[in-house]
Amino acid sequence: MHDDAQPDAAVDSSPGALTRARGFKAGATTAGIKESHLPDMGLLASETVAAAAAVFTSNALWAAPLIVDAEHVADGRIQTVLVNSGNANAATGERGLTDARRMAEIAAARAGCGADEAFVLSTGVIGQYLPMDLIEAGANAITPTAGGGAAFARAIMTTDTFPKEASQRFEAHGRSYTIGGCAKGAGMIHPNMATMLAFLTTDAPVEAPILRAQLREACDRTFNMISVDGDTSTNDTVLLLANGAGGGPPIADAAAVNPFAMALEAVCRKLAIDIARDGEGATKLIVMEVGSAASVGEAQAVARSVVRSPLLKAALSKGDPNWGRVLMAAGNAGVRIDPSRCRLAIGERTLFARGEPTGVPEAQAAEAVTGTVVRIRLELGRGEAAATAWGCDLTEEYVRFNADYVT
Amino acid sequence: MHDDAQPDAAVDSSPGALTRARGFKAGATTAGIKESHLPDMGLLASETVAAAAAVFTSNALWAAPLIVDAEHVADGRIQTVLVNSGNANAATGERGLTDARRMAEIAAARAGCGADEAFVLSTGVIGQYLPMDLIEAGANAITPTAGGGAAFARAIMTTDTFPKEASQRFEAHGRSYTIGGCAKGAGMIHPNMATMLAFLTTDAPVEAPILRAQLREACDRTFNMISVDGDTSTNDTVLLLANGAGGGPPIADAAAVNPFAMALEAVCRKLAIDIARDGEGATKLIVMEVGSAASVGEAQAVARSVVRSPLLKAALSKGDPNWGRVLMAAGNAGVRIDPSRCRLAIGERTLFARGEPTGVPEAQAAEAVTGTVVRIRLELGRGEAAATAWGCDLTEEYVRFNADYVT
Repeated sequence: MHDDAQPDAAVDSSPGALTRARGFKAGATTAGIKESHLPDMGLLASETVAAAAAVFTSNALWAAPLIVDAEHVADGRIQTVLVNSGNANAATGERGLTDARRMAEIAAARAGCGADEAFVLSTGVIGQYLPMDLIEAGANAITPTAGGGAAFARAIMTTDTFPKEASQRFEAHGRSYTIGGCAKGAGMIHPNMATMLAFLTTDAPVEAPILRAQLREACDRTFNMISVDGDTSTNDTVLLLANGAGGGPPIADAAAVNPFAMALEAVCRKLAIDIARDGEGATKLIVMEVGSAASVGEAQAVARSVVRSPLLKAALSKGDPNWGRVLMAAGNAGVRIDPSRCRLAIGERTLFARGEPTGVPEAQAAEAVTGTVVRIRLELGRGEAAATAWGCDLTEEYVRFNADYVT
Repeated sequence: MHDDAQPDAAVDSSPGALTRARGFKAGATTAGIKESHLPDMGLLASETVAAAAAVFTSNALWAAPLIVDAEHVADGRIQTVLVNSGNANAATGERGLTDARRMAEIAAARAGCGADEAFVLSTGVIGQYLPMDLIEAGANAITPTAGGGAAFARAIMTTDTFPKEASQRFEAHGRSYTIGGCAKGAGMIHPNMATMLAFLTTDAPVEAPILRAQLREACDRTFNMISVDGDTSTNDTVLLLANGAGGGPPIADAAAVNPFAMALEAVCRKLAIDIARDGEGATKLIVMEVGSAASVGEAQAVARSVVRSPLLKAALSKGDPNWGRVLMAAGNAGVRIDPSRCRLAIGERTLFARGEPTGVPEAQAAEAVTGTVVRIRLELGRGEAAATAWGCDLTEEYVRFNADYVT
């Protein structure tokens, strides 16, 4: 059972995860794009061209870098990544596209690869043009190192309060490999990639078609199951690079793909949970488990509907075990739920069963929501499928924050 | 052009709209269900059995009264309505159903009609059983009168800050008729019927099949186009009664149905806009117009996506004309928007066109969001269809409110 708020025992969340796999270097700098004068550019480079797969936002309005990246990653080959925070290069039209292409050329020049082997990302304010002089000077100021993953993880932060890093080792064909990465999140996080960037690296030899399939599957169960505020940004991207620096034959058969896929999902899950936990203004992580659903898709729909309910999120922020709002939100998922077959528990207390309240006194129910993790479990009584979604509470701080912060 | 924040000139929003049509009486009382000791029960009765149509919540978990009402309204005949606030009779299982049936019997006894000609509704806290002794005593304490519409409108309020009432006259077959009603809203309002109740009456002779079709259409363009917080409740219902007390032949041909339909929509629009304006903690009404869409459905999807964006709603609460968040939210509607064909205006200022910002200084743009009505217009450049949605800003007060109020 991994679908919970506890990091998997085997996941290493110490700093530097992005460059823990062999053959990757990274670095960061303060280019001056953010007004805060905090680090705002990161550069990642593989020693050799890596197999690559990416998942992009479901928002119809893609920011300029995503349009360029989709072209560059189409052949499954990427060697370097240049990213800036402080400016999203979104809603910037033709000039934004030109700037994104130029940013790829700058990155490629640093890595000694072709521009179409460079991947670029931007996050921050929408509707302003990139300061290309700062971007170019910043990229040239970075010297990637094998220990640079931690600096990269900090440089991509916007409203995050802590960097998100995770790595895990796995074995295949008798060899040991590492998969690791970092992510940024905070506001606007919602299923299907909100202003969320995640960068993943592995030294395992995995070719692009398998990378794509496994990354999509891992994202569907992790990054696409978190919600901070129900909005999905124009820039969200998850990138996975496999450079094969760990040697050995390609990871292609089930016996080798399975440990790779499990490690990939564990890393993605840890990063995703940390994003939910660090939602703007959040004080509680909500872990919403849906069981005995007729299908995984239906379980996911119900779990996501609950973690995005503003009414429930506001109640939990003040320690109110408002199970009625859980049911209400579950009922909005487009699934034909029969309340007489449902069972709902918050923490260890079953509060609703067979269509009726169980009569647990509110003071007892409230104990389950006092901590920083609130675990809710809803059984639908429809089948065998299950899913978990993660979210956070909604506080006055969130509103203050988003009223004052210009994105 | 009626799709805006200005009430239609012909709509009368003075108190008493529910009983303005001939042959309807209403009244209210303080039964003691609400802790506040404010009025919490209302009774509406038609002199004769009326043709009836209802639209119920899209939430899969219907509260008990809706299950009973759907049975009673199936034959298109209702004579009386009994409603309480303070307790939603939702998530109450078999006992809740029994209570709702008993409530219908109580109403029918007062009106001298069959129990299956009574319609009952409850709104308030979820998961608690109805205090049937208070319900029965309350119903018996009400004496409906022809001027009782205003008292009824106040008795259905929960977190509303003002009663919502509207009526309009229309002519058909050379006769003059009235359609009027009242609604309650405030929290949990979202397209497809949130904790929203609306009661509509007309003295026009309209049979149930036409009532049903016209009510569905009016709801799709009004009540289903408002959003306060994106949640949809278990209890939302719109009921329309036509008792024919105005005389004349049945309203059935287009020449008679059209003026009826227009008046119905005008009344629904006024009530819906007032619900959006009175969202919990709201300080601004958002009027989101989408134009040049490929279909009405697509225009509605985009408009609704924008008015439900927490990020945009938080920005507007502080007077930030954040057009980037409008675009982001529009991009989440599942419509393939091409930004190079879009034009976005807030108030009179076009802020984004042909894929790029127009460069209007922020101070000028901010002028358009200083008032209590913020009008946003997005042209998609895809076709001829249009739609309008209404919402409200998201304030710290909303969070405070929903963290403290137990529903």
